[in-house]
Amino acid sequence: MKNKPGLIEETVEFSFQLPTSIEFGFGKASRLGERIRQFGAANVFFVTDQGVEAVGLLNGIKESLQTAGIAFDTYTDVEPDPSIETINRAAQALQSKSYDCIVAVGGGSPIDVAKGIRVVSANGGSIGQYAGVNRVQKASSVPLIAIPTTSGTGSEVTIFGVYSDWENNVKITVTSPYMAATIAIVDPQLTMSLPAKMTAASGIDALAHGIETFFSTIATPASDALALQAIAIVNGNLRNVVENGSDVQARIGMSQGSLLAGMAFNNGFLGLTHAIGSALSGHCHVPHGVAIGLLLPHVIEFNRTVRPEKAAKIARIMGIKGNDDESLALQAADAAAQLVQEIGLPTKLRDVGVTEDKLSDVAKDSFKSGMMQFNPRQPSEMEVLELLQRIY
Amino acid sequence: MKNKPGLIEETVEFSFQLPTSIEFGFGKASRLGERIRQFGAANVFFVTDQGVEAVGLLNGIKESLQTAGIAFDTYTDVEPDPSIETINRAAQALQSKSYDCIVAVGGGSPIDVAKGIRVVSANGGSIGQYAGVNRVQKASSVPLIAIPTTSGTGSEVTIFGVYSDWENNVKITVTSPYMAATIAIVDPQLTMSLPAKMTAASGIDALAHGIETFFSTIATPASDALALQAIAIVNGNLRNVVENGSDVQARIGMSQGSLLAGMAFNNGFLGLTHAIGSALSGHCHVPHGVAIGLLLPHVIEFNRTVRPEKAAKIARIMGIKGNDDESLALQAADAAAQLVQEIGLPTKLRDVGVTEDKLSDVAKDSFKSGMMQFNPRQPSEMEVLELLQRIY
Repeated sequence: MKNKPGLIEETVEFSFQLPTSIEFGFGKASRLGERIRQFGAANVFFVTDQGVEAVGLLNGIKESLQTAGIAFDTYTDVEPDPSIETINRAAQALQSKSYDCIVAVGGGSPIDVAKGIRVVSANGGSIGQYAGVNRVQKASSVPLIAIPTTSGTGSEVTIFGVYSDWENNVKITVTSPYMAATIAIVDPQLTMSLPAKMTAASGIDALAHGIETFFSTIATPASDALALQAIAIVNGNLRNVVENGSDVQARIGMSQGSLLAGMAFNNGFLGLTHAIGSALSGHCHVPHGVAIGLLLPHVIEFNRTVRPEKAAKIARIMGIKGNDDESLALQAADAAAQLVQEIGLPTKLRDVGVTEDKLSDVAKDSFKSGMMQFNPRQPSEMEVLELLQRIY
Repeated sequence: MKNKPGLIEETVEFSFQLPTSIEFGFGKASRLGERIRQFGAANVFFVTDQGVEAVGLLNGIKESLQTAGIAFDTYTDVEPDPSIETINRAAQALQSKSYDCIVAVGGGSPIDVAKGIRVVSANGGSIGQYAGVNRVQKASSVPLIAIPTTSGTGSEVTIFGVYSDWENNVKITVTSPYMAATIAIVDPQLTMSLPAKMTAASGIDALAHGIETFFSTIATPASDALALQAIAIVNGNLRNVVENGSDVQARIGMSQGSLLAGMAFNNGFLGLTHAIGSALSGHCHVPHGVAIGLLLPHVIEFNRTVRPEKAAKIARIMGIKGNDDESLALQAADAAAQLVQEIGLPTKLRDVGVTEDKLSDVAKDSFKSGMMQFNPRQPSEMEVLELLQRIY
């Protein structure tokens, strides 16, 4: 079914879901109180982290709850890459009172914590036992509102949660529609104060979500449409927003692009960039977005050989001119590499403290990722190692 | 915010929802029994119509239920453009026994009936009292599986239901996330025997859903992405499928395109084509798809003047070559007109039994449609009349 008219791609069987209702708008988070009143909740369990609280992002949100007469408690005991223990502890805090709404404000971590505690509260046990796909039995009756403060993870609309299992030194992923937030309130205003480095790193992660989903073995016309739109919007705004963080239109664009990428990869999943990236972060503590930026151009080139028509579309939507698909495909990796460089992200592993002796372990562990199977070209361990050596 | 990089369109506040989980696959309907068993239902209320039953489309589906040991009753008392009375009568039948799943198989009518009876059963009263937006209070606890047998309405994934109110001689629309089916099973195999005329009429309706949503005043990056993909896929397959109804790939394409258009217009709503189309069907009994085919090219041209950049994108995705946006925009209406002609749909109102004296009433009544407000250019009654006269 390749190259049929009308953009049909190879997957004939597919599913598509978006359990989360999306509400997007500049300044929308500061009207949260009204929104919660509309569905009659009165006791909110707030999940966030100390960083979000320290920079004052909660002030407007909390004020709107107070104005609306809604009681709330704030839970900030959330670390980056939250652990299974963190979830179980936070679930106990949630169950200590009778809350009728959970609100998560933050980057991926507070949102993943909120997803996890809802599942544990409704189903019992520890979040670890739900690792895998569709192992959660029951929906929670307490709605979750997810409010992202970065433009990158897409966690506000996905059915995934990622948790650190320190006992076995691995990351686990829980995949279930019951993980999804009830409502995502995406408010670009909350991203206005994000520093340039974090804007760049989270932005390239959003781009990679679009590109990996577009290449995915389970890509569908719906995920393709959303992924391409995400790539176009992120590519069109990321340089501007890194250069000038107060560019409102560019911030709006990044929030839209990240959201669309999340909607896409919720259904098309990811690939080799995220598989290696996860191992790289685990072994060498490279921040997620930085690892993704380092790897993405090289994975595009690796996948181009088996998906040249998709590589050409990526190049075209990233602004490369030309009518020859073969030549466009060859320029896709360059388009991504140039963007990575222009937004000031590292381009060599040695520059982010990775030592060469770690590379073989990283290559090996990248095969532990569930995302590897969705990459359109299956690499050998040697090929992953060679890819890493090229970036070293 | 027009013409910003990265395809950002003018709407900054938007919402996006897809309460229905989509499961797409050739032959999937004949595995319905297993699917229902997975979520533990045992007594199914089947909603369909006599036409669907007569052509044998239910045979495979019913067999799979029998094999899975699932009991069912079949309700076929469904007319085209179902009335409020039909809904209330069918709701009584649903409540007469304790069913734990509703399955709707058919074109728009059986699916709209199933949506309506779920709402009435959970909320009481008559479906008429829920006309409007978000007036339904409660979700039903009985899941609804919608299985379309045509490629056009998109009703399997939308939050709308349209019903005839014969007492007041108008159509009412109920809009609520609680109207949406729980699961849409989209199986192109069920459309294989659809006659060419109905394939053409329902196919042009799907194209119009994409185009109207793309032009809509509440279009967003997400609805734009899905709408453009829908336009591309429908345009790429409609000629083939009308010419040769057993072209499996083209049937799959039409099912995908119609589905994506439904996902888009569920969030971007429709416009002038559907506003006039509804009045035309009401006054002159022109079948919905035929009316849409007659109107669409003229509405594209009417909207082009206020959305030239979108008209150009429509032309480009429908295969018109060229780099000059102004010239492309001027050719968008032609691209649609040519498609309408090539698939053998009427192009003049006089050819479908409309008499000239009816046109002023049609023009007047088109303003009763809730869809008029989403059209990017608000016409006067005189402009609608002139448009109708040009097609006469």
